[in-house]
Amino acid sequence: MQEQVLKTIHQRRSCRRFQEQALPEKVVAAILSAGTWAPTAGNVQPWFFYVVRDGYLKEKLSQSALGQGFIAEAPVVVVVCADTQRARATYKQRGVDLYCLQDTAAACQNMLLAAHALGVGSCWVGAFDERSVSQLLGVLPAHRPVAILCFGKPAEVPRNPGRRALEDVVIEVD
Amino acid sequence: MQEQVLKTIHQRRSCRRFQEQALPEKVVAAILSAGTWAPTAGNVQPWFFYVVRDGYLKEKLSQSALGQGFIAEAPVVVVVCADTQRARATYKQRGVDLYCLQDTAAACQNMLLAAHALGVGSCWVGAFDERSVSQLLGVLPAHRPVAILCFGKPAEVPRNPGRRALEDVVIEVD
Repeated sequence: MQEQVLKTIHQRRSCRRFQEQALPEKVVAAILSAGTWAPTAGNVQPWFFYVVRDGYLKEKLSQSALGQGFIAEAPVVVVVCADTQRARATYKQRGVDLYCLQDTAAACQNMLLAAHALGVGSCWVGAFDERSVSQLLGVLPAHRPVAILCFGKPAEVPRNPGRRALEDVVIEVD
Repeated sequence: MQEQVLKTIHQRRSCRRFQEQALPEKVVAAILSAGTWAPTAGNVQPWFFYVVRDGYLKEKLSQSALGQGFIAEAPVVVVVCADTQRARATYKQRGVDLYCLQDTAAACQNMLLAAHALGVGSCWVGAFDERSVSQLLGVLPAHRPVAILCFGKPAEVPRNPGRRALEDVVIEVD
């Protein structure tokens, strides 16, 4: 068990070239379901997943995201939204500014890992104009778009950007 | 591959009772290493992991976190910090307010999943006083403590709090 999970964590990469073929509905559902099992403060589950497959909308999404063209090329795009209203109701400002961002980020990571395990490439996009994305997709006012996730069969072997060594980021306190 | 990963994602739970025994260093290193392989905007890696094993410090940490006693009982506590300076240098305010929180949250989720795969229980704590935690551990000014992660051999079978059904959180846009 441990080996497969650790391998998936270490080998997931950002994939920015996708094959055209659609993803089976079962695979998409498995990815989205993984998102819902992220840890979440007080079980608030402050997330909504807007699923976009339409070519025109994906093209417009890509324009809202500094023209990152691979967004339009991914068969499935999931715009992850944080439900700031649910977050505020339970945890006030810290819920809005921290917990709902963390919960949705953990949900994103679950989805990327599930995708990788299922042979699906993915890329997490953070640079986009939140207002135009909301307008384009008719996102509810309480929902804040916090990530655009692209999914598809990979058409590239993404490079490994490397990481700092463990000893450079771990601080033992005693 | 897929089955193990999806199982781990679905079966990870918040564990709040731990056995006293220390965790092998190899296991702790594997968990921390998983954290470093989280996705991170522009490969900024805006994270530092403060590792706490000292009984006095864990007791004080627990007091900084609404008295959540299981923090003191976990053999290993990792205070995950967001490096706001690195984040700001590359991405200005959006880096500080969003990306570095998401990157560290994805790192947390990697660590929880790695722990579960390795038979280690974990709990992500978000409710704590950031200033007193920083003071207690001598956290650098640029580092913001964003999560307290507790790890140890589980001494309970945590309950499943359940999740909303997929159809309640997925919105198909077309």
